[in-house]
Amino acid sequence: MAKLKDPPLRTSGILAAALTPVRDDGSADAPLLAAHCRSLFDEGCSGVVLLGTTGEANSFTTAERQALLEGVLKAGVPAESLIVGTGCCAIGDTVTLTRHALSAGVSRTLLLPPFYYKKASDDGLFAAYAQVIERVADHRLRVYVYRIPQMTGIDISLELLERLYGAFPAVLAGIKDSSGDWATTEALCRRLGSKIDVLVGNETLLVRGLAAGAAGCVTATANVNARAIAELLRKRSHAEAATLEREVKAYRAAFEAFGIIPAMKAYLARTTGVAWWRNVRPPLVALTDPQVAKLVHSVK
Amino acid sequence: MAKLKDPPLRTSGILAAALTPVRDDGSADAPLLAAHCRSLFDEGCSGVVLLGTTGEANSFTTAERQALLEGVLKAGVPAESLIVGTGCCAIGDTVTLTRHALSAGVSRTLLLPPFYYKKASDDGLFAAYAQVIERVADHRLRVYVYRIPQMTGIDISLELLERLYGAFPAVLAGIKDSSGDWATTEALCRRLGSKIDVLVGNETLLVRGLAAGAAGCVTATANVNARAIAELLRKRSHAEAATLEREVKAYRAAFEAFGIIPAMKAYLARTTGVAWWRNVRPPLVALTDPQVAKLVHSVK
Repeated sequence: MAKLKDPPLRTSGILAAALTPVRDDGSADAPLLAAHCRSLFDEGCSGVVLLGTTGEANSFTTAERQALLEGVLKAGVPAESLIVGTGCCAIGDTVTLTRHALSAGVSRTLLLPPFYYKKASDDGLFAAYAQVIERVADHRLRVYVYRIPQMTGIDISLELLERLYGAFPAVLAGIKDSSGDWATTEALCRRLGSKIDVLVGNETLLVRGLAAGAAGCVTATANVNARAIAELLRKRSHAEAATLEREVKAYRAAFEAFGIIPAMKAYLARTTGVAWWRNVRPPLVALTDPQVAKLVHSVK
Repeated sequence: MAKLKDPPLRTSGILAAALTPVRDDGSADAPLLAAHCRSLFDEGCSGVVLLGTTGEANSFTTAERQALLEGVLKAGVPAESLIVGTGCCAIGDTVTLTRHALSAGVSRTLLLPPFYYKKASDDGLFAAYAQVIERVADHRLRVYVYRIPQMTGIDISLELLERLYGAFPAVLAGIKDSSGDWATTEALCRRLGSKIDVLVGNETLLVRGLAAGAAGCVTATANVNARAIAELLRKRSHAEAATLEREVKAYRAAFEAFGIIPAMKAYLARTTGVAWWRNVRPPLVALTDPQVAKLVHSVK
């Protein structure tokens, strides 16, 4: 593979980990997702992550994922504003989705490690990421490693990231750290924040993360609370930041109490009037009517 | 969906969870796998599970998985002797692979739950399995639920199995229980052993499992130790069973010490002379030469 020389496309600010709307027939609704993306930009998001955990990525086939991205772009969402999740268990699928994203003009991809086998070694994970980067072989590629051990059962060590950065300095653009574990997030920010974009996985660690060297935040709750989170970003050094932080944390907790993905979808169904926003794909379960009523009451 | 009336195809005896040989170019070697299946039958296996955990199923794309099954059948392995792993994170992929297996003449499929989202509820898992069964809509289908929480992070409760059996009595044929947790395995055998085939996930629980109502065993180590495990099945009520059991357990432990999949592949590379048996797909890592030497020494 030729040495990559382009400057990396940097990521900062608040990015929404977008929900994926699903129609009653189970299909993804790309036009509705595009409209949702536009409202997220209006509310202050600097970008949108499509097909991450919040977007139920792994509940869609590779063909569905490609069609969804194409639909969103066709509906006018700029490719430069997107990061797309393309990491699968099978490297062949990851390569297919990553190549497709690049062919559609999206350079920034969020790569889960192959997540079936647990106790994967750093050697094995390095080989997996290296194989994807080498097989995709596109100088435009920017990889964000996705650390979310509570779903994958696999941690991403500092040593692995440093090794990947050493081997692919122009490709390894950052990490989305959704571990929620401040000690390791802080170490990531301090050790790697000057080299790659460290994106904290939600707004509860935003202020501390930025102070330690994080570039920004990718968060699920931006789907329902982007304005306040963007405000927290702006006010992070001000006296009122602590109050704002308490507010956004409480807001997040209200959704987490019902399962954050189905709860946010149910909330958007209410606020937009689009009933099928409430749908989820199994194994997730949609909120019941009484749950929706409780949720809406708790976030009033 | 029409009510299914065919008697289930029962499963018993020792089934090998077959390794998937991978050539140096990374492609699956179906003819070599077919030859391996034939040797497993010769050594006393009553069947072979293709594309389970041991077969690195999730490291292959759906297209690769379909081609591998076709290749094995084309090489003469009887469809009735196979159970094929078809469970993926995306229900659409599970439906595709399950329909394909049926179209190739294989009725028995091993279905992982969708394994990305943790803390999945029984309602969500029931919906996932039900959606697969209803979308496949084929009276020949026999589903073996795959319980392997150490990889999926998801348990399969007795209540879920009973609910699936209640809804799909002719389709829910059994469970492969790889939890390794005797207390729950025993409860499965006693509560469900008369209704569905409970297949214990390895030979260390075989004798106890059969006594409690299990139908048989699906095990990785049959790839390298089928004769002894089949002998243990035959001698299970005899005085020498305890000695045999100690021997097969020690043999298994020798491979587990190096990572059971790469270790068994390295061993087969030695015993068959086919060098590429040693290859694995990332995130697994092949044994080094010194590891192979140690392994071979330890199982002499």
